[in-house]
Amino acid sequence: MNHNPNIRHVGPPVERAGKVQPISPAVIADDRLVFVAGQVPMRNGLPAGDDIASQTHYTIDLIEGILQRAGCTLDDVVKTTVWLVNAGDYPGFNDAYAQRFPAATAPARSTVISGLIAPVLVEIEAIALRRPG
Amino acid sequence: MNHNPNIRHVGPPVERAGKVQPISPAVIADDRLVFVAGQVPMRNGLPAGDDIASQTHYTIDLIEGILQRAGCTLDDVVKTTVWLVNAGDYPGFNDAYAQRFPAATAPARSTVISGLIAPVLVEIEAIALRRPG
Amino acid sequence: MNHNPNIRHVGPPVERAGKVQPISPAVIADDRLVFVAGQVPMRNGLPAGDDIASQTHYTIDLIEGILQRAGCTLDDVVKTTVWLVNAGDYPGFNDAYAQRFPAATAPARSTVISGLIAPVLVEIEAIALRRPG
Repeated sequence: MNHNPNIRHVGPPVERAGKVQPISPAVIADDRLVFVAGQVPMRNGLPAGDDIASQTHYTIDLIEGILQRAGCTLDDVVKTTVWLVNAGDYPGFNDAYAQRFPAATAPARSTVISGLIAPVLVEIEAIALRRPG
Repeated sequence: MNHNPNIRHVGPPVERAGKVQPISPAVIADDRLVFVAGQVPMRNGLPAGDDIASQTHYTIDLIEGILQRAGCTLDDVVKTTVWLVNAGDYPGFNDAYAQRFPAATAPARSTVISGLIAPVLVEIEAIALRRPG
Repeated sequence: MNHNPNIRHVGPPVERAGKVQPISPAVIADDRLVFVAGQVPMRNGLPAGDDIASQTHYTIDLIEGILQRAGCTLDDVVKTTVWLVNAGDYPGFNDAYAQRFPAATAPARSTVISGLIAPVLVEIEAIALRRPG
């Protein structure tokens, strides 16, 4: 392999049904920008919670854990993209999300309605910026 | 708060129904990359125009205004993502978009069909690059 | 035009039905980040292959060609976004994708179900990081 020395892959590898997936949880470019893969609220192969509030919190918990392994926190997130299965879940999603991303320092965000691969209500991806030094 | 000194949030805060939302209109990373939140053609709580052409222009007007507050213009946009509600709106969308982003210097773009939260036909997000010093 | 000296557009211009489109195949920011426009498996106006495996490979071939013109390879990709028309195509898509992006160095990825403009089964966009020098 001819590895790009300015790219760092954050593990552990994503597994589904016991099989390693071609997805890194996050990739760091130039030690600065952190691209976090779209996260869904699945735990041990099952949805983590029945409602949009618990699924949103669990998804952001996953992002927070990945960011930590990349040397960041939720405060360092600059952009999120959110896919909701049901438009009616928007208010509940937004309330839970606001508890984790306060308005004053919130990321830029796009939220659309979409189908998902996993049997869940929400998927969220994030881009963060590492701090210098 | 433990604020990342290399992140700048571009205001004013997004409000909907009189309530501040957990969304920054744009976030600037390292004084270079500008992430503009997905914009929709809503004006005073109502769609800004009935057809895809007027809604596309209004959405790009919003992006242009946010970019200006971030020290950029439409010429500085490197990437857009476009969500259309109706595939049949693509030609009208594309014609309006081409008036604002000339082909010779157009951003990279992805355009897909999706549901939206607001009762509009189009949502557009953008990434721009600020000019040095 | 007031061109941003830190932005480079990678050609050739996208054409559809003989008409130049307002889309650059890729845009390079600061000679570092490469934003590749969403690619679909269309060849001479027709879908390139009938099944998800061949369409996925063809789409990644297109991305590989664009990256080459931007001075990169698939090894330099840090993030992909994938839109599938049918959730049932996910396993076939994922197998083909894994042949091109080995798990150990895979990009971060988000995969959702969405409608597309072209009559194909998959669209993929990518962000890559150029190597220094």
